Amino acid sequence: MEKITFGPMPYLSIMPALLVGANVHGKPNYMTAAWATPACMVPPMVCVAINKERYTGKGIDENKTFSLNVPSVHQLVPADHCGLVSGAREDKSGVFTSFYGTLKTAPLAEECPVNIECRLFKTVDCGSHRLYIGEIAQIHADRACLTDGKPDSAKINPILYAQSTYYDLGKEVGRAFSAGKRYGQK
Amino acid sequence: MEKITFGPMPYLSIMPALLVGANVHGKPNYMTAAWATPACMVPPMVCVAINKERYTGKGIDENKTFSLNVPSVHQLVPADHCGLVSGAREDKSGVFTSFYGTLKTAPLAEECPVNIECRLFKTVDCGSHRLYIGEIAQIHADRACLTDGKPDSAKINPILYAQSTYYDLGKEVGRAFSAGKRYGQK
Repeated sequence: MEKITFGPMPYLSIMPALLVGANVHGKPNYMTAAWATPACMVPPMVCVAINKERYTGKGIDENKTFSLNVPSVHQLVPADHCGLVSGAREDKSGVFTSFYGTLKTAPLAEECPVNIECRLFKTVDCGSHRLYIGEIAQIHADRACLTDGKPDSAKINPILYAQSTYYDLGKEVGRAFSAGKRYGQK
Repeated sequence: MEKITFGPMPYLSIMPALLVGANVHGKPNYMTAAWATPACMVPPMVCVAINKERYTGKGIDENKTFSLNVPSVHQLVPADHCGLVSGAREDKSGVFTSFYGTLKTAPLAEECPVNIECRLFKTVDCGSHRLYIGEIAQIHADRACLTDGKPDSAKINPILYAQSTYYDLGKEVGRAFSAGKRYGQK
């Protein structure tokens, strides 16, 4: 297969579109982000990369708490809106209905089917971005998005992101820790 | 909307299934991972969370380099196989055809349409997992997966992962930094 090189650029396949929630000066604020991942199993942690100029970062620095909210395709317009305007210029506290859970200072967007409350564990300065690593304090999900008591990706209908384009989730193509058992078989 | 709480667990929507490549004792080794994200724009960085017990981590610690390889749905069986067996027990150097780029010690899986070479920037101990943050040194991609000289997600046909299930990518549902302009319009 012929390979082409691109030089270094911030690229990594498909990522989940998310809303990072933080209280800034006591008001809920949400920003669109897609650079996030689970970071640890025990204790459960996630991390999210945020440009140092972002208003939301100030709220995380201030409260040491934040949230990651998983919007569904139904929230595409308000979710993308939160990436177009800064909370420094426009009050975004009314874009979603906020509620609070265990942490009290990490606003959660009720309209999003999944809401993850995080307590800041560590901040890593990477250059233009800070990587905020947070320990998960609690996860909230819409009852309507569960199957057998667990979050159901098909019902959540999340927004996926790659290179300025949003996608929805396709079909199931295999089971993890299982499909590989066919390796080496004729 | 009625919300249910789950307690803390390592969950974050849909993630990209990847193969982390590292030389261990001079031999290429690949492990399946889905806990990874871009971490910085300038300089371009990524990070990946790896259980401390993993053989691949030893290679990253040893060489201070690693790769992230994006398998397509066509590589589902060998990709999942790399998550079922440890390089400590079985030589996985032949599962993919390895090539080397700029870094010389980060093996790249030729069959995967996108290969990202990383120089270790920082390691963060999170508990059961270490978060490896790497600066991207070079990105390689199959010429057949490009459109207008850029990686085309539809042609790459990546594997997505959530809760032990693999999915393919769905259809385009909107443009980022654009769809939100309709917010507040009647």
